[in-house]
Amino acid sequence: MFKKVCIIGCGLIGSSLARAIKKNNLAEKIVSSNRSEDLNKKVIELKIVEESSSDTKKIVDGSDLIVIATPLSSYEDVILKIKDSLKSGTILTDVGSVKENIINLVEKNIPENVSWISSHPIAGTEESGPEAGFSELFKNRWCILTPSKKAKEKDVNLLQTLWEKVGSKVDIMEAKQHDYILSITSHLPHLIAYNIVSTSLDTQDGTKSNIIKYSAGGLRDFTRIAASNPIMWRDIFIQNKNNTSKMINKFIENLEDLKKAIESEDGKKLEKIFTKTKKIRKDIVEAGQDVKKPDFGRK
Amino acid sequence: MFKKVCIIGCGLIGSSLARAIKKNNLAEKIVSSNRSEDLNKKVIELKIVEESSSDTKKIVDGSDLIVIATPLSSYEDVILKIKDSLKSGTILTDVGSVKENIINLVEKNIPENVSWISSHPIAGTEESGPEAGFSELFKNRWCILTPSKKAKEKDVNLLQTLWEKVGSKVDIMEAKQHDYILSITSHLPHLIAYNIVSTSLDTQDGTKSNIIKYSAGGLRDFTRIAASNPIMWRDIFIQNKNNTSKMINKFIENLEDLKKAIESEDGKKLEKIFTKTKKIRKDIVEAGQDVKKPDFGRK
Repeated sequence: MFKKVCIIGCGLIGSSLARAIKKNNLAEKIVSSNRSEDLNKKVIELKIVEESSSDTKKIVDGSDLIVIATPLSSYEDVILKIKDSLKSGTILTDVGSVKENIINLVEKNIPENVSWISSHPIAGTEESGPEAGFSELFKNRWCILTPSKKAKEKDVNLLQTLWEKVGSKVDIMEAKQHDYILSITSHLPHLIAYNIVSTSLDTQDGTKSNIIKYSAGGLRDFTRIAASNPIMWRDIFIQNKNNTSKMINKFIENLEDLKKAIESEDGKKLEKIFTKTKKIRKDIVEAGQDVKKPDFGRK
Repeated sequence: MFKKVCIIGCGLIGSSLARAIKKNNLAEKIVSSNRSEDLNKKVIELKIVEESSSDTKKIVDGSDLIVIATPLSSYEDVILKIKDSLKSGTILTDVGSVKENIINLVEKNIPENVSWISSHPIAGTEESGPEAGFSELFKNRWCILTPSKKAKEKDVNLLQTLWEKVGSKVDIMEAKQHDYILSITSHLPHLIAYNIVSTSLDTQDGTKSNIIKYSAGGLRDFTRIAASNPIMWRDIFIQNKNNTSKMINKFIENLEDLKKAIESEDGKKLEKIFTKTKKIRKDIVEAGQDVKKPDFGRK
């Protein structure tokens, strides 16, 4: 499918994509660029890529697919490094979680004859780094493409096929819609998870061990997400601040409403809300977006 | 250990305890009482108990261990039914998630020579009903005992041994402390999960399917807890309303703080908070209170 693929940033997502491309024979050569020399050594040792270097400008040279898989705050730096090495006909993509701002940032910095097609695989775990990646990460997960207006249709089709070959289902949508939907299904949930774990740590009455001991009562489910990469999430919230801020307001409004119902012992209202939320889990499991096993199969 | 054990309310927890008692040979006879005749039939068919009846007063007769495993709002009704059938020396316990109010309620209604020792096994799944129960549910989970002042010490020891024999680790504490700690580790997390799923349903722009499709970005982890028994949780929040209400206030205060940091693009502050919350997951896994597998082993 591709002659040379270059992954910039071999973390959980970047290394998983490299592994999946290799496993499915989708490229003749896969290389990567990481800022840390230790990481460049490690990805070669782990046989994730054939070559790896901190000299991004040099290593992207001749690639027909380039994937930016760094935190969002590094995009500007990456683009300025690679913009003069992009050959005509190259497909440029990324795997970032926020689209509107970065699509414009990249668009104004790259040559006309490059197809810039932003990708967002809705996949990941709470772990970080190339050791945490695995080739099946994208299997049965959605990947949203938000192509720049200048991207060639044949390139959009080719990139879609790549994601499908690594196991994803693909949707194409506008960046604005993407950022709105993901603020609901991903960004707000992460922020809330960080906030509840942070709140529980604040309220320790000198006995942190109690929080840990009794976490199986519910808190532990939130700690998984609140263990996600801090840098990545810092950038996501800032890049999607308008949507995130609006969702926080809605969330607080609803929570104040629940608080009032509890304080006035309005059991009917509580029961109604809790019954409504019960159903969506079934839909998510039926859509193959979560495991059916109760308690995530912990037993 | 016991001659006759009666479980009142054979749901997820009640039926799991019955199964665990049977499996470990801790009683000569196990019976149960359920309001629904279908349920009474089912628990006998499933061989969870030997006898089961909606006539609670009659079936508890002669029991040396009685376990109330109904929603909290049914306790008063249950106690009024059984109080004249309690034989001298009986141990009375429950498995409820809130203690202070109900300990007093039960205490003032039972005879002097009954040992009332409230239990709270910190265990459960999002499923309900006797089919969902299993004998290993309490294994490696904490169980908190909050004995009434009138309970005999030898009975507290005996009940502790029962919980240990079904796999639990036991702590003994005051009801007030229990209700405070659990509001942090269990009640607030459940309320937040209900609220985030409810908020995501509210914000549907006619496309509920988007919420489901892209839920793997984070929302799905919350839907597990938000699928828990609505009646049970309605009662918990109302019974622990003072602690819950205070925790909601702290949570909102912290969330407003995060919102400000996002709006002012204070990356340093966000990174600091997200790094702090990352660590607690490791502690919880090390304490055996969650599985180590990334993404709950969904891959």
